[in-house]
Amino acid sequence: MSRETRIYGAVEAGGTKFVCAIGDETGRILAQTRFPTADPAATLEKMCAFLREASRSFGALTAIGAASFGPVVLDRAAVHYGSIGRTPKPGWRNTDIVGILAREFPCPIGFDTDVNAAAVAEQRWGAARDVGDLVYLTVGTGIGGGVVVRGAPLHGLMHPEIGHILPRRHALDAGFDGICPFHRDCLEGLASGPAIVARSGAELQHLDAGHRQWELEADYLGQLCAQLVLTLSPQRIVMGGGVMTQLRLLPLIHRRMLHWLGGYIERREILEEIDRFVVAPALGAQAGVLGALSLAIDASPGV
Amino acid sequence: MSRETRIYGAVEAGGTKFVCAIGDETGRILAQTRFPTADPAATLEKMCAFLREASRSFGALTAIGAASFGPVVLDRAAVHYGSIGRTPKPGWRNTDIVGILAREFPCPIGFDTDVNAAAVAEQRWGAARDVGDLVYLTVGTGIGGGVVVRGAPLHGLMHPEIGHILPRRHALDAGFDGICPFHRDCLEGLASGPAIVARSGAELQHLDAGHRQWELEADYLGQLCAQLVLTLSPQRIVMGGGVMTQLRLLPLIHRRMLHWLGGYIERREILEEIDRFVVAPALGAQAGVLGALSLAIDASPGV
Repeated sequence: MSRETRIYGAVEAGGTKFVCAIGDETGRILAQTRFPTADPAATLEKMCAFLREASRSFGALTAIGAASFGPVVLDRAAVHYGSIGRTPKPGWRNTDIVGILAREFPCPIGFDTDVNAAAVAEQRWGAARDVGDLVYLTVGTGIGGGVVVRGAPLHGLMHPEIGHILPRRHALDAGFDGICPFHRDCLEGLASGPAIVARSGAELQHLDAGHRQWELEADYLGQLCAQLVLTLSPQRIVMGGGVMTQLRLLPLIHRRMLHWLGGYIERREILEEIDRFVVAPALGAQAGVLGALSLAIDASPGV
Repeated sequence: MSRETRIYGAVEAGGTKFVCAIGDETGRILAQTRFPTADPAATLEKMCAFLREASRSFGALTAIGAASFGPVVLDRAAVHYGSIGRTPKPGWRNTDIVGILAREFPCPIGFDTDVNAAAVAEQRWGAARDVGDLVYLTVGTGIGGGVVVRGAPLHGLMHPEIGHILPRRHALDAGFDGICPFHRDCLEGLASGPAIVARSGAELQHLDAGHRQWELEADYLGQLCAQLVLTLSPQRIVMGGGVMTQLRLLPLIHRRMLHWLGGYIERREILEEIDRFVVAPALGAQAGVLGALSLAIDASPGV
């Protein structure tokens, strides 16, 4: 089969919706469907039905990529490789996504976290095409981070869980407890979409520019970016998710990131070109499904 | 030349002393010297003299590895590749270590931070031989961290600068300002050897087990380990340096690390086997020079 005729299945398994697609090596989507995430059996049958039907229309799939909400088991030697791990989502714990796909589709299957996949997609087709080391952050219902090192997603012991780092509390935020069920006032507990609503009574876009919430949000996310520079040393940070659709947040984050770094990282990319260092995604809402497509391409033979 | 006859030069360029050695692929040191770090010209001439003499005794060097105090320039495309960058050490800024070696020795030269090199050595010969992803921390005059991902040191934009992350302040430590000239109360400013002396008037080993300093130190370093798990997802953390020679610190760090993670990372390696997850180095004071040797081996052809 020539490279031109290769087609791939892509599954973005999100906590609220699934997006399934067929695509090619250039990132072109040939067919796509989405449906709400219900119970695992019904949801995964819909996923398989779409891929089954697509195989009939487009021909056998070269590979499938699945990008899942987490935590997920990425260790290929583990019994539960390819599963969702301990999730608070009712019924989904230990759901074997790769196993269910492999039972029906005789092709390689790529699997990773939704955020690692989005990072891979932004690197392949999006806002980080010119670098090999990047972080993709999503700030929305939760806060998550995917990491690519030398062109491949970072796993290590498990996978990064960047949303749960502990930022230093802002002096004006002492009255807010935070909403993370594990840590209370970790980053997700202080700066996710629901945290904003819990603290300020409204989503960010409904609060005027002078509202303290903007300052707090920029401070916590700027601190996050600074910590990531010091630990992961990325060449770019791509910030997506519902909260980040408020684009005027980005320059505020830049300022606070520089504040927290205190001039220590003396690099032109940070000191002079920070608006090209911490950026909005180029793939927008398609980052997830294109991430899954990317995992499929990377899992296929000869790539 | 057969693999057996390969010999390598190793240079640990530390802020207070240089260690130069000749070694082989098994990590055996055949000759070694050390001298204080004085002005760059005299110090680097001593380094070259040792390697020159060793080449006469042992035969031509297959490669040389240099592991340097930082910040260093690791980007091979950069004008100053192979140099020490902006260091507060008088006279050493922009010192071109790789250039000086390359001018005299016609062999490949490996170059990295001292802590990245120590991480590589602990992975090759030490406490992390069974994993591919690890962090090596040194807690002494400063706090530094080296990172290995999939068997190779992490660079990205520059290299990690883990010592400067911002821990949450301990409630019992509000009266101490911290001593980092850049950030005041970053980790290095709160938990390095000099910070301990500045706060408590003595080095850790001279303070009895009930002294508050032990609790503070364990809390800050436990918090550091927790943050690293959430961002870098290592399979092991190796903790060396002068402060960590106080081995009873390690179980205290384990406890605080678990506290800060709040049960979120549900992995056996952390919840049940933390004494094998955060460990002392196996190479002790030789980690630096063995790191340099490791860089030499990795830089040599056919490896």
